[in-house]
Amino acid sequence: MPDSSDPEIGFDVPARVGMALEEVQTPCLIVDLDAFEANLTRMCQMADASKVGLRAHAKMHKSADVARRQIEIGGAIGICCQKVSEAEVFARAGFDNILITNQVCDPVKIGRMAAFCQPGKRIICCVDDINNVANLSAAATKSQVTIECLVELECGTQRCGVSDLDDLVKIAKAIVAAPGLKFTGLQAYNGRVQHHQSFADRKGVEADVVAMTRSAIAALEHANISCEIVSGGGTGSFTFEASSGLFNEIQCGSYAFMDADYGRIENANGQRFDRAEWQNALFLWTSIVSTAQKGRAVCDAGLKVQSVDSGLPVVFEREGLVYIQCSDEHGVIEDSAGILAVNDKIKLVPGHCDPTCNLHDWYVCVRGGIVEALWPVSARGKAF
Amino acid sequence: MPDSSDPEIGFDVPARVGMALEEVQTPCLIVDLDAFEANLTRMCQMADASKVGLRAHAKMHKSADVARRQIEIGGAIGICCQKVSEAEVFARAGFDNILITNQVCDPVKIGRMAAFCQPGKRIICCVDDINNVANLSAAATKSQVTIECLVELECGTQRCGVSDLDDLVKIAKAIVAAPGLKFTGLQAYNGRVQHHQSFADRKGVEADVVAMTRSAIAALEHANISCEIVSGGGTGSFTFEASSGLFNEIQCGSYAFMDADYGRIENANGQRFDRAEWQNALFLWTSIVSTAQKGRAVCDAGLKVQSVDSGLPVVFEREGLVYIQCSDEHGVIEDSAGILAVNDKIKLVPGHCDPTCNLHDWYVCVRGGIVEALWPVSARGKAF
Repeated sequence: MPDSSDPEIGFDVPARVGMALEEVQTPCLIVDLDAFEANLTRMCQMADASKVGLRAHAKMHKSADVARRQIEIGGAIGICCQKVSEAEVFARAGFDNILITNQVCDPVKIGRMAAFCQPGKRIICCVDDINNVANLSAAATKSQVTIECLVELECGTQRCGVSDLDDLVKIAKAIVAAPGLKFTGLQAYNGRVQHHQSFADRKGVEADVVAMTRSAIAALEHANISCEIVSGGGTGSFTFEASSGLFNEIQCGSYAFMDADYGRIENANGQRFDRAEWQNALFLWTSIVSTAQKGRAVCDAGLKVQSVDSGLPVVFEREGLVYIQCSDEHGVIEDSAGILAVNDKIKLVPGHCDPTCNLHDWYVCVRGGIVEALWPVSARGKAF
Repeated sequence: MPDSSDPEIGFDVPARVGMALEEVQTPCLIVDLDAFEANLTRMCQMADASKVGLRAHAKMHKSADVARRQIEIGGAIGICCQKVSEAEVFARAGFDNILITNQVCDPVKIGRMAAFCQPGKRIICCVDDINNVANLSAAATKSQVTIECLVELECGTQRCGVSDLDDLVKIAKAIVAAPGLKFTGLQAYNGRVQHHQSFADRKGVEADVVAMTRSAIAALEHANISCEIVSGGGTGSFTFEASSGLFNEIQCGSYAFMDADYGRIENANGQRFDRAEWQNALFLWTSIVSTAQKGRAVCDAGLKVQSVDSGLPVVFEREGLVYIQCSDEHGVIEDSAGILAVNDKIKLVPGHCDPTCNLHDWYVCVRGGIVEALWPVSARGKAF
């Protein structure tokens, strides 16, 4: 047996730096660094032009290496996380401006959040329940820290968030009055609209999001409460938030990697996102393991290396090949012309990047066909 | 910051031994040990009565602790794995009789398999391609080991496996003649039929599986090649394989934990599996994080802690609560009576156990409401 301290190809890691892409073990995630950097640069320019802060959502990639580049190359002012344990990974990795875009209600989780809310770290969370305020305040006071709070406004997803403006103002007032807490503003994020294919549909829904946010800000101003941060928007919608004159932060995540589901949605000119807006930078690298059935090739990328909740993956830039069926460990690719042979490798664009990334331990970063870096998915599985 | 060598609740682990279930951090997987052991005992009795060997499929749970109990309590004669890196975890954990129920084609993977195929370890893999035989033989010869081979027969899933009996015999003959390889028999597994709800449907498909297997065995016998192992069957179909007089090994996995999809299928008496055959032993333990929307509660179990490829999870034994929507980090539960409050915890039965288990690092094992053990998901993410 090999020394367990030596990372082994195909067991601990899928590749080594300097290796040709063709040699990389499958199935694994590869990041096309040129495409990734182009996406970061484009988003940086778009946020700058709109004069909004990009707070990149790290729930998508769960990687400190990706987030660092979003700040250094991509102009992000900070990051978003979705869970306390996820935020803790990024706080430990040195990130000091983190918005947890979610309610933190469990006393153990509140205590953990207060514990890493050290001096020099700005930690913000969302609130939609007045009973949560006292618990957050008690933990912040006990740890002698300040926890910043956004009240979450429900704006169409029917999930978390306050719908009634009187409730919104009550919660905001409670936060203002609570020791150890700071009222920082509003979160208004419609997750569902991000994936509407039609631009006109997104525009219609977003008009409501903006109207609700305007009413919420007005209700708070009427109570003499002002919002330092108004945060919302994802890859599918952020142009609406950014041009609203109300939002000053956007929370985009998927723009950095893209996926097949976002690729299908259309911009204002009716062009697909993956043709005209963002480049596919994330791929599932997979090998053919069987061609025993005529007209079909079977690859080694199944449900354990991707999430199919938003549709099947798409074969990247190979005419005549369609991924038609996904089981636990296998994918079936329709190959009527018999192009593929056993041990051939192909790139798939995952259907949905966030839950796909969360299945993997490594990003194999490739430029010009050569592995340039391996980045750990540092917060993989951090769901608490 | 805490000492990183000390496992922390809510960051490294969801629980500690001795803790009450109510204190366990969410979302996480819990195993009801009484139900789990009852499932193992029942399958042991059923396999014994049919005089077939149970080779428990470890791809479902990916845990050495679970597999050890399947052998010690559950009468399993060995285990199945689905990937080389998965088998390697189990080989390193001391398991010495492993069938990889899959083609191993990539030269790096073949080399790794040969490397852990040490004296005293029985390692068997599947073959459906005559070109694969020379590669397997070369690696076995180089490592001075014997790799055992089953030829895989396609029997309805249209995925891997040989359909033509002449091809089958040719591959078997090539294996017999190849240095370092041993022809051990046949694999005939129909993955798709496992989940057909109607018993009559499964019976009809299985009649074909058995007929194809009979023809394959006859074709091999005609060429003077005998099968030491004829392996197939899963939790939904194994009674047909076990009573066929042809199969001497079954490959069931899900029976140990069960899931919502298997719960819905029916036995010969028209009774649901989760009422009359197997107990739900695996649960997703989740907390309510928001009740801000009337008639709905939002829990912390979304796509990052479960796979919804086979349907949404089912709320366990709580009347009036229905899990209706799953997004990346949240689940929406219809709660028209307003039963649930923030921080309440409930059990979900996952839609599909295999890809759900593969998302988690720990099984929190509970008996009588108290945490009795934490078992690592030792082969989590081992997809190579």
